[in-house]
Amino acid sequence: MATLPINKLCILGLGLIGGSLAAAARERGLARHITGWGRRESTLEKGKALGYIDDYSLDLATAIEGADVVLIGTPTLIAEDVLAALHEVCDPKAMPVITDVASVKGNLHRKALALWGEMPATLVLGHPIAGSEKSGVEAAFAELFIGHRVILTPTEETDPQALALVEALWQGTGADVVSMPVNEHDAILAATSHLPHVLAYSLVDALANMETSQDIFRFAAGGFRDFTRIASSDPTMWHDISLANQAALLAVMDQFSERLAELRSAIASGDSEAIASLYANAKSARDRFAEQYPAVENADE
Amino acid sequence: MATLPINKLCILGLGLIGGSLAAAARERGLARHITGWGRRESTLEKGKALGYIDDYSLDLATAIEGADVVLIGTPTLIAEDVLAALHEVCDPKAMPVITDVASVKGNLHRKALALWGEMPATLVLGHPIAGSEKSGVEAAFAELFIGHRVILTPTEETDPQALALVEALWQGTGADVVSMPVNEHDAILAATSHLPHVLAYSLVDALANMETSQDIFRFAAGGFRDFTRIASSDPTMWHDISLANQAALLAVMDQFSERLAELRSAIASGDSEAIASLYANAKSARDRFAEQYPAVENADE
Repeated sequence: MATLPINKLCILGLGLIGGSLAAAARERGLARHITGWGRRESTLEKGKALGYIDDYSLDLATAIEGADVVLIGTPTLIAEDVLAALHEVCDPKAMPVITDVASVKGNLHRKALALWGEMPATLVLGHPIAGSEKSGVEAAFAELFIGHRVILTPTEETDPQALALVEALWQGTGADVVSMPVNEHDAILAATSHLPHVLAYSLVDALANMETSQDIFRFAAGGFRDFTRIASSDPTMWHDISLANQAALLAVMDQFSERLAELRSAIASGDSEAIASLYANAKSARDRFAEQYPAVENADE
Repeated sequence: MATLPINKLCILGLGLIGGSLAAAARERGLARHITGWGRRESTLEKGKALGYIDDYSLDLATAIEGADVVLIGTPTLIAEDVLAALHEVCDPKAMPVITDVASVKGNLHRKALALWGEMPATLVLGHPIAGSEKSGVEAAFAELFIGHRVILTPTEETDPQALALVEALWQGTGADVVSMPVNEHDAILAATSHLPHVLAYSLVDALANMETSQDIFRFAAGGFRDFTRIASSDPTMWHDISLANQAALLAVMDQFSERLAELRSAIASGDSEAIASLYANAKSARDRFAEQYPAVENADE
């Protein structure tokens, strides 16, 4: 099994995340050779011009030939198709270490099971909790992952050496790497990331459909601005995440709605104590969070 | 009727808003004499030491004696009590211009009707859409209202000269003043401010009560931080607002919950088109908002 530096790293999909990983690998000497693959040649050309990749191919089999590590850098649902394409071209007896960066892990886990009949030992699903409001290889930069968490979701079938290599690669970019089961990852991200996005989209949508929507936005202040900032996120990406993490997302949506309904009753019945205690508990939890986990630059997605 | 500069301005409750108005009135020469009133002498002493007020009294009748304009600077529910206290001490035939800064207007309108039997012609309810994460007279500053909106809610009974004076006072601080009916103010604020706070509190509360709450907060990222920032707001203030604006808040909570339930069904049934269109509509409304109304410094509450 390869160790750092990786002899050949192949990045499938050169967007913000894939491009930044390539940039970090280059700058920090984590890989000797970096190859790109994607659908748009112009993107790959840009990545090459920026010095993030050495070369590229539009043909998947050619791109991954001899690669020690293949990183799927595409969004959530496309990553399923890329897994299927890799299944086509990879010799199951000589598979490279494959990892990814998508926001949901359960759908890819299920897809891999469907394709290979079991989780390939060298497939290490992962998710860097980092991003930016910008997207595309133009927005990529080598420092994106510094101080950010990367969650890996190995299974019982995972080869410890494959896991160690993916871990070392991310640690090499400056990230903090942790491992947890697929289900736990998806439940936690549903709660902290997917649910807030769903709520922000729903709120803006509800307000935009009110008769007085022009006035509503006219008199909105700073709290509203912060609260709805994530409703400016890429709708396609969040559409994909909502479907890919359907079960976990529905579960937290229901937990939230139940709590909101309780608060509604408390307000409707003028239950002063219940309202005060909910707000006070929430404030102290939020304050504790802010204190324990101070903001990291570019801590998005 | 007095014009600017006001001969005697009396501020009831010297917090962030009342203190900042006093500071702005002083700095910009909007009032010749500024008197404070409140429950805590230490706060009034501070306001005097900071040069925001000339003097103060702990006795309401003494404080407002000879005042041309009385500004109720207390929070939402306390403002009801202050109105009642003013009703006790004011000669109904020689009332000063009275205005306020509370976040909800309907409860004070109802309270005034109950106290006086009709809206006093010189009572001009208002709401500066400005604030800060800090509170108290120590956090006050003369520039707080510059570029911010102040909504006044005159009624048919309002004396046009009283309205003009309150308008001139706020414009003098650098604010943009607009007028609208009480109900409209409360509906708009319910949608843009009160509902987001309720959602942020409910989300943090729901997450804090999950079994995995420690992990949840550990892996929360920038989007979550922005989205839940308002859950660190003063719980007492928001408790009061929730009760004072009960009807309008319940109405927008229901509109929101209906929309969220529709999105839930779309996710549950895998209705890709419905999800994509809701997110895309919300994003374009949010982007339009950000473009039409660029952020103002200190644009809170």
